[in-house]
Amino acid sequence: MAQPHPLDPAAVQALVKRGFEGSPFVRDVGLQFVDCGAGWCAASLELQPRHFQHTGVMHAGVITTLADHCAGEAGQLMCGPDEHVVTLEFKINLLRPGVGERLTCRAEVLKPGKAFHVVEAQVWTHQAASKVLVAKLNATLAVARNKAPA
Amino acid sequence: MAQPHPLDPAAVQALVKRGFEGSPFVRDVGLQFVDCGAGWCAASLELQPRHFQHTGVMHAGVITTLADHCAGEAGQLMCGPDEHVVTLEFKINLLRPGVGERLTCRAEVLKPGKAFHVVEAQVWTHQAASKVLVAKLNATLAVARNKAPA
Amino acid sequence: MAQPHPLDPAAVQALVKRGFEGSPFVRDVGLQFVDCGAGWCAASLELQPRHFQHTGVMHAGVITTLADHCAGEAGQLMCGPDEHVVTLEFKINLLRPGVGERLTCRAEVLKPGKAFHVVEAQVWTHQAASKVLVAKLNATLAVARNKAPA
Amino acid sequence: MAQPHPLDPAAVQALVKRGFEGSPFVRDVGLQFVDCGAGWCAASLELQPRHFQHTGVMHAGVITTLADHCAGEAGQLMCGPDEHVVTLEFKINLLRPGVGERLTCRAEVLKPGKAFHVVEAQVWTHQAASKVLVAKLNATLAVARNKAPA
Repeated sequence: MAQPHPLDPAAVQALVKRGFEGSPFVRDVGLQFVDCGAGWCAASLELQPRHFQHTGVMHAGVITTLADHCAGEAGQLMCGPDEHVVTLEFKINLLRPGVGERLTCRAEVLKPGKAFHVVEAQVWTHQAASKVLVAKLNATLAVARNKAPA
Repeated sequence: MAQPHPLDPAAVQALVKRGFEGSPFVRDVGLQFVDCGAGWCAASLELQPRHFQHTGVMHAGVITTLADHCAGEAGQLMCGPDEHVVTLEFKINLLRPGVGERLTCRAEVLKPGKAFHVVEAQVWTHQAASKVLVAKLNATLAVARNKAPA
Repeated sequence: MAQPHPLDPAAVQALVKRGFEGSPFVRDVGLQFVDCGAGWCAASLELQPRHFQHTGVMHAGVITTLADHCAGEAGQLMCGPDEHVVTLEFKINLLRPGVGERLTCRAEVLKPGKAFHVVEAQVWTHQAASKVLVAKLNATLAVARNKAPA
Repeated sequence: MAQPHPLDPAAVQALVKRGFEGSPFVRDVGLQFVDCGAGWCAASLELQPRHFQHTGVMHAGVITTLADHCAGEAGQLMCGPDEHVVTLEFKINLLRPGVGERLTCRAEVLKPGKAFHVVEAQVWTHQAASKVLVAKLNATLAVARNKAPA
């Protein structure tokens, strides 16, 4: 079975932080890295008017981008240093209307493997002191070997 | 079984166009309405550097936002004038790495209903003259009654 | 939000037991009711040669029948006495090859609702003293009103 | 990309037929092989009282077993002679109540690959001359290498 990334925790944190800050779409949407460990990753998003629909609820694309990216990073944390993940598919249940000031997400690997990881992610919306589960995602990630540099 | 929207085609086109242009996140990402009819909707996205990952492939969140929004509009086109759709869940298969200059999407209602619609959407990437299927989405939408204005 | 079934616990147990024993296919496959409560249900299956593939692993249809039926009963336990559930869709991840002597399943409602319940179910395989997670299912159930008797 | 099975059509038909008749659970439920070709497979099921729920509709486990098995065989037909498929996950939409005398299923590979196939399957119910789509399944299959015989 896959083992967690054999780097020291600080180096891993720096790698995942770069996976958020270095990805143009993640930066464009505004996702922020929070924390990570072996097989899990947490992130957040400060909601702005541009993240919503004209109906006043968050666009599902915003919630999904947060959950999918967090799931990918959690899976990456169960890969070896010469491997990377490729998302094959995911399902997301939108459990409640997304309203609030901030989203947080925590993704965890349910079943790591040599060839694929299954990852789950939960997304909560925060308004003042209340926190409500708005979505749950379940993804299958293929584990691919990095190409050797030329 | 649900009937297509009983407005004339031009009015329906105008409504769906507004569903794209009036939604802040859809405008922010850059989705463009192409065409629609009873139970189907087509849209496109001109790709910009901000839609990608640092790895050079499109972020799954971009592809998903296009497919999900198109699916919602296709489902809306099978609602009565006093109804709207709420996406309960979707699954998306990411079939090939998303590279190219432009995405197009076509969503079609597979099974309309009084209480929910099942919708499928396909996303292609275009580069020069070639067109490749990159994703397929399958969504369950609840049909909800509009609230009466106060 | 939906409330658990307002019957006394013994009556509810009897109802769910009947949902297993009275369903011809459930009886045919051999599923056995174990226990239930508000929003959850547990069941098991003693494995026989007929539940397998020629390759020596359980057929996915066996695991799925157990998980789906358990999920439906868990959802039913969040319905009112004049309501029943209809499964709209489910996704199942087959996490490991199904081998062993016995399957157990526990399904829990993740999000109950007036019109829809989202339910999750886990399936374990047992061999001697070991217990391994072999599948996870996630289902959307519509809540429908019972027809009045004629 | 994966190529269809390089055997002659009659040999492939015999192999897939054996995949139905040699699988104890498939035989137990009563699935019957109908036909197959490169990347597709068709099967049927004569419905008997034991396939139903006490509510008078087919058990979802019956429909799913048919769709899942057909999808697996369709994927197998895109494998090389030294490869076999392992189902990682599937989603199924139950579109209408399953009633009738007979089920038929056709599964087709949507996207074959070296490491994974994505397959879709549709299930129809037949009553007298009418044919109605009751379910659609979408599966991800891993392509695994056969173990060398000892």
